[in-house]
Amino acid sequence: MPAVTLYELAGADPGLRFSPYCWRSRLALAHKGLAATTVAWHYHEREALSFSGQDRVPVLIDGETIVADSWAIAVYLDKHYPERPQLFGGDPGAVRFINTWTDSVLHPALLRVVLLDIYAVIDARDRDYFRSSRERRYGASLEAYCADRAAHLAGLTTVLVPLETLLAQQPYLAGDRPAYADYIVAGTFQWIRCIGGPPLGTPGGPVEVWWQRMLDAFDGLLRRAPARHRAAA
Amino acid sequence: MPAVTLYELAGADPGLRFSPYCWRSRLALAHKGLAATTVAWHYHEREALSFSGQDRVPVLIDGETIVADSWAIAVYLDKHYPERPQLFGGDPGAVRFINTWTDSVLHPALLRVVLLDIYAVIDARDRDYFRSSRERRYGASLEAYCADRAAHLAGLTTVLVPLETLLAQQPYLAGDRPAYADYIVAGTFQWIRCIGGPPLGTPGGPVEVWWQRMLDAFDGLLRRAPARHRAAA
Repeated sequence: MPAVTLYELAGADPGLRFSPYCWRSRLALAHKGLAATTVAWHYHEREALSFSGQDRVPVLIDGETIVADSWAIAVYLDKHYPERPQLFGGDPGAVRFINTWTDSVLHPALLRVVLLDIYAVIDARDRDYFRSSRERRYGASLEAYCADRAAHLAGLTTVLVPLETLLAQQPYLAGDRPAYADYIVAGTFQWIRCIGGPPLGTPGGPVEVWWQRMLDAFDGLLRRAPARHRAAA
Repeated sequence: MPAVTLYELAGADPGLRFSPYCWRSRLALAHKGLAATTVAWHYHEREALSFSGQDRVPVLIDGETIVADSWAIAVYLDKHYPERPQLFGGDPGAVRFINTWTDSVLHPALLRVVLLDIYAVIDARDRDYFRSSRERRYGASLEAYCADRAAHLAGLTTVLVPLETLLAQQPYLAGDRPAYADYIVAGTFQWIRCIGGPPLGTPGGPVEVWWQRMLDAFDGLLRRAPARHRAAA
């Protein structure tokens, strides 16, 4: 078994790992059957990542190889461990649309609902950075950005329509069995769960049914992970 | 070469084939290198499809086999002609998200811009059906539904963000080479082109650059097809 290390974003509680991108990598490692040592990392610990030549997590260390970025990590794992279960089952190209949709549509819609929940779980030493960088990005205070939470929460139903539609047609995003397509979105749902955000998907609908299955996957890897509140899911 | 027939939605001009779903199938056939006889079909010709047990196009006839629905046709072609270039290059599962996103997000956004353009190209005998079915679906007259066209047109920029993002990272939706993931969205762009709708994608941006390549694919199959106006693209 190779010695693999994964650097993950952590909250004030170092056991609270909430980054959607880091969860993508953790699920990818589980899918490949690779045990990994995870290392808690906080926004203010930039120097701790200097070995990777950049300043964001996840970062994977696999022997002599260092890979940053969740997408690059997934592609690396399939290429480097082709004999283990495939994350992509073919060309990763089309799966990447799920990645870009999640990052550019789903995450912005969610952030209007949960930005203050993230702020609540991060380390005290990360708060100034988090507040100032986000307030610059959005041109509004965190509180103003998340005002009218009820409307943004209601809007999520529309955002999730393509997922509800897909999962009414097949049990997993990847088809009959879960694969990286599922881990992209599951990472996002786990992020929301870990920071104590709202349940996602129409109650009893295809997305919620899928999410319950994902919570159970890999011996309950997601369900067992520390979360801010006991998730309703 | 097998004898393949494809029933396609046509306008008042039977040469004007504008259905996005039919274009998906036409591009899939081109990708597989299968020559097909296409048959013009209009909404009022339901009986002409009774052999297929349903009332929508595309319908593919391949020898003794009849396949309706663009997604089913693509899956059938890859399964039945595995020795020809693959449309999915693996499990079709994850590609289907592009299908559901296109149908449930991109098409509704486009219809607010082009519904009257469709009405303008369909056969006179189809107009009562088209108007009444759409006005029932949307709870508004065609004209009211498409009012404020400028705002809906401007909103398309946001809708296309995940595509712009993906195509800034790789040349085709499917990755390095075009495949069914591309034909799903190209069918939509061709639909808009054929009915004389607006150009799509940021001028000079990744989506527009991709679309120009798709127009050139298969010896200009899309570019040479009859359209309501000479498309600016």
